[in-house]
Amino acid sequence: MLYPDSLLKLINFYKKQPGVGEKSAERMALATILMDDKEITDFATALVDAKNKIKKCPVCGSLTENDVCDICSDQERDHNLICVIEDYKSLISFEKVGNFKGIYHVLNGLISPMDSIGPEDINISSLVKRVDEAQNPELILALKSSIEGETTTLYIKKIFEKKNVTISRLSYGIPMGAEIDYLDIITLDKALEDRKRISE
Amino acid sequence: MLYPDSLLKLINFYKKQPGVGEKSAERMALATILMDDKEITDFATALVDAKNKIKKCPVCGSLTENDVCDICSDQERDHNLICVIEDYKSLISFEKVGNFKGIYHVLNGLISPMDSIGPEDINISSLVKRVDEAQNPELILALKSSIEGETTTLYIKKIFEKKNVTISRLSYGIPMGAEIDYLDIITLDKALEDRKRISE
Repeated sequence: MLYPDSLLKLINFYKKQPGVGEKSAERMALATILMDDKEITDFATALVDAKNKIKKCPVCGSLTENDVCDICSDQERDHNLICVIEDYKSLISFEKVGNFKGIYHVLNGLISPMDSIGPEDINISSLVKRVDEAQNPELILALKSSIEGETTTLYIKKIFEKKNVTISRLSYGIPMGAEIDYLDIITLDKALEDRKRISE
Repeated sequence: MLYPDSLLKLINFYKKQPGVGEKSAERMALATILMDDKEITDFATALVDAKNKIKKCPVCGSLTENDVCDICSDQERDHNLICVIEDYKSLISFEKVGNFKGIYHVLNGLISPMDSIGPEDINISSLVKRVDEAQNPELILALKSSIEGETTTLYIKKIFEKKNVTISRLSYGIPMGAEIDYLDIITLDKALEDRKRISE
């Protein structure tokens, strides 16, 4: 019995978090018991609160405390430009860039036959409904370039093929600032294929 | 307002933990709201519990839920062999090795004039009392080889100089498995100085 019981319990809860190993969990638990009483109680309340208050936006699948999320209810944004993303983390990334003025559709997953995740398991059916209701919509498929990402992109492209929808995907290419000789060959190949003409 | 309020609050609490940055805190908070209700409540309880139940052992300065810690109250251990360590994390490391059969004295800090931490700020006075009460005690000073560690080692050595105490420190040297040509020169120098005769 190395740790006192209550410490061990706390370490185990921290260890359940993504990216937290034995050592980090131990460090976090030891830091926790140094917090003052009020802070600990507030932390505990924040945990339960976040769980209770946050739910998925019924329109786009993002996270919100309200009936509909802030982005979906923002009338200043272009509701005909829909960026389709894998998860809430992607939304945060785009919003940090800050240049996208359309709205999002969060799939909360990708099609993955290997993991038995089919189109019906992710948030696609409500996308069809949204697109049908939009006027002259454009879908930007912003999914990662993995097998699952490509499969999902192809699937969505196929669904909307015969409808009046513009569909685009993010460009592939060299990340800004990257050294050419350190790039993997697939990225380099894609950058060549997607090359952009700069002469007139 | 990027995150829902309650999510932001939780992210900020995770960010207060040692070694947790923006990105990890975000990941952890998003994982948290996927935990089921019972798990969340248990996590919250574990936080408050650990804070309330764990206190310092009045004998050695380690952490415990009891009046005196398990190691101090273990009569099978050699109470004349006292390993002096910086913090509870060191204790865990030694106990994981599992070969040390003496007891510990946790200083909960090191002397550091730069940070205005003097001998009276760390757990030294009770060490004097323990040594006085022991029969033929040996102190193993197991502090790190930083300026603060060396200063504290020297200070403790000086206190007990005229008393009937054997004092030792951990050996310096090459970590097991390390490549000689990757070692820093100070470690190599110490390993040379502390060399051990192996011929008869």
